[in-house]
Amino acid sequence: MKKFVNDPANFVPEMLEGVALANPEMLRYVPEYNIIHRADRPHNDKVSVIQGSGSGHEPAHIMAVGPGMLDAASPGGVFSAPPMEFCYECIKLMNSPKGVLVLINNYQGDRMNWDMAVEMAQAEGINVKSFVIDDDVAVQDSTHTVGRRGVAGNFFVIKACGAAAERGASLDDLLKLAEKVNSQVRSMGVALTSCTPPAKGKPIFEIGDDEMEVGVGIHGEPGRRRDKMKPADAIVDEIFDAVSSDLPFKSGDRVALMINGLGGTPISELYVLYRRAAQRCSDAGLTIARNYVGNYCTSLEMAGASLTLLRLDSELEDLLAAPAEIATRIF
Amino acid sequence: MKKFVNDPANFVPEMLEGVALANPEMLRYVPEYNIIHRADRPHNDKVSVIQGSGSGHEPAHIMAVGPGMLDAASPGGVFSAPPMEFCYECIKLMNSPKGVLVLINNYQGDRMNWDMAVEMAQAEGINVKSFVIDDDVAVQDSTHTVGRRGVAGNFFVIKACGAAAERGASLDDLLKLAEKVNSQVRSMGVALTSCTPPAKGKPIFEIGDDEMEVGVGIHGEPGRRRDKMKPADAIVDEIFDAVSSDLPFKSGDRVALMINGLGGTPISELYVLYRRAAQRCSDAGLTIARNYVGNYCTSLEMAGASLTLLRLDSELEDLLAAPAEIATRIF
Repeated sequence: MKKFVNDPANFVPEMLEGVALANPEMLRYVPEYNIIHRADRPHNDKVSVIQGSGSGHEPAHIMAVGPGMLDAASPGGVFSAPPMEFCYECIKLMNSPKGVLVLINNYQGDRMNWDMAVEMAQAEGINVKSFVIDDDVAVQDSTHTVGRRGVAGNFFVIKACGAAAERGASLDDLLKLAEKVNSQVRSMGVALTSCTPPAKGKPIFEIGDDEMEVGVGIHGEPGRRRDKMKPADAIVDEIFDAVSSDLPFKSGDRVALMINGLGGTPISELYVLYRRAAQRCSDAGLTIARNYVGNYCTSLEMAGASLTLLRLDSELEDLLAAPAEIATRIF
Repeated sequence: MKKFVNDPANFVPEMLEGVALANPEMLRYVPEYNIIHRADRPHNDKVSVIQGSGSGHEPAHIMAVGPGMLDAASPGGVFSAPPMEFCYECIKLMNSPKGVLVLINNYQGDRMNWDMAVEMAQAEGINVKSFVIDDDVAVQDSTHTVGRRGVAGNFFVIKACGAAAERGASLDDLLKLAEKVNSQVRSMGVALTSCTPPAKGKPIFEIGDDEMEVGVGIHGEPGRRRDKMKPADAIVDEIFDAVSSDLPFKSGDRVALMINGLGGTPISELYVLYRRAAQRCSDAGLTIARNYVGNYCTSLEMAGASLTLLRLDSELEDLLAAPAEIATRIF
């Protein structure tokens, strides 16, 4: 295993400490519960928007904490759900009179722990509700999932709800907004390599030198099939067809297009994929109103990429354009 | 070779086309000469700041084009200098009455081609001058270098000169500024894996499963030595010592600290490195006024990272904080 790591047991805490040290004015770190939260939260004037899932998907979710995005995130270990206590403490810490919205990606471990934490918090009178994201069209059920998985489309739910919460939306309004974004967003990915969690020390799956996993999950879950490597354009064509036919997206739609790297793929290759995806959008009569090319939801150092399409309306375009700040800034 | 690529011969043009398609308002692509330039440049009111080097280091340098950064970039093939004609055409295209500043990283191919292009342009009466960046402390001379190599410290020269040019600085002022930044910035990197240029189809060097290259160059040039893998903190300690003792940085200095990923290392690991580097700065009495964690100057999918320290004064802090926009935005 060749990684920048000290004791693998401390990988997540040391990463979180690094994130907090790099953002001393914007973020706070609560080591007892793996919580990263906005230094200026909670206040009483807005709904708190929070999320927690396995680590290893950075910048999702801890580096998506900041003004206009998440108020807090509570990650678990690499590829493992946050313990129920962490979820519960995160809700309590971010409690606000206007309520708390928990955004959950659809994995059984995350759902179970967050559901219990939400119930416990509600029993104490905290106004908290949750919403489950499931944008991955690759498979219906999966290794860790009943129903579709939540993947990079999650970014758009966070961005929209984060912006609306900042503007004073109510908890019920935010639930409706999350439902709207989730209903309009579709994703699918492909993996070229596996990846190695520090504490495991070996790859989570094997894949041949000439193979790719089409429709891979972000924890290496099997997708639609194992296939031989193909040219970039052919790969885009397959995932674009799968994603765009699912909603379906229609000529005249305005969309946000995301090419998301899975961690180990250089950004040069992501732009080669974007080129073809933009051509396909143009051919299909889709107008790309906003685009996103980079690492948003990763699987450690996995080489691979996913494509996400979000159908826009004026409300969503406005919310996506709203100011936001997170740890993964360039400047 | 497992990459998102079509015909390897088209890798760079297809990437550039993707970058232009993703930034239709901000950027223009000139396919004849591999040039990416600001859509609103050149104007007569400012010095044009340009750069060109081998591809494969993205986001450097083509994705560093934008307001407050580069006005244009002219990349060559992967890890090969841009042809002299490309450099020459880039200077001519960005010609401005206030002058053109060419920022060159110190590699022999880049220097030779840009020097010839600058001479040709000067012979035609164009007011163009160049500056060579050499921030890598790892080795004195290298495979492709007489003198030190230019690596991620390049970002700070671009950022400072880009901001100053936007404010109307003269060509001579910008040359002095570039010299000042270059004199105050030091870098060193370590590689855990090799990388594979698409047209070459095989790794540029071999490295054992338990080895790292300390002081690696961004084209895989040998560094100070091949060593066995060590814990993250020990790796940071070695490169921090090499970098901070070189200027030397002194207690009381205000600095910018960059942990730069070489392309294949997940951002989680970069924050583990940042944690230790921030501790070391604190121990050494250095105040981190600005920090940068992410991929700035890469070597395709190479796993590895570099550490850059820049000594700040009020002028540099002000210029680093100035607004800028580039293709690799998150939102």
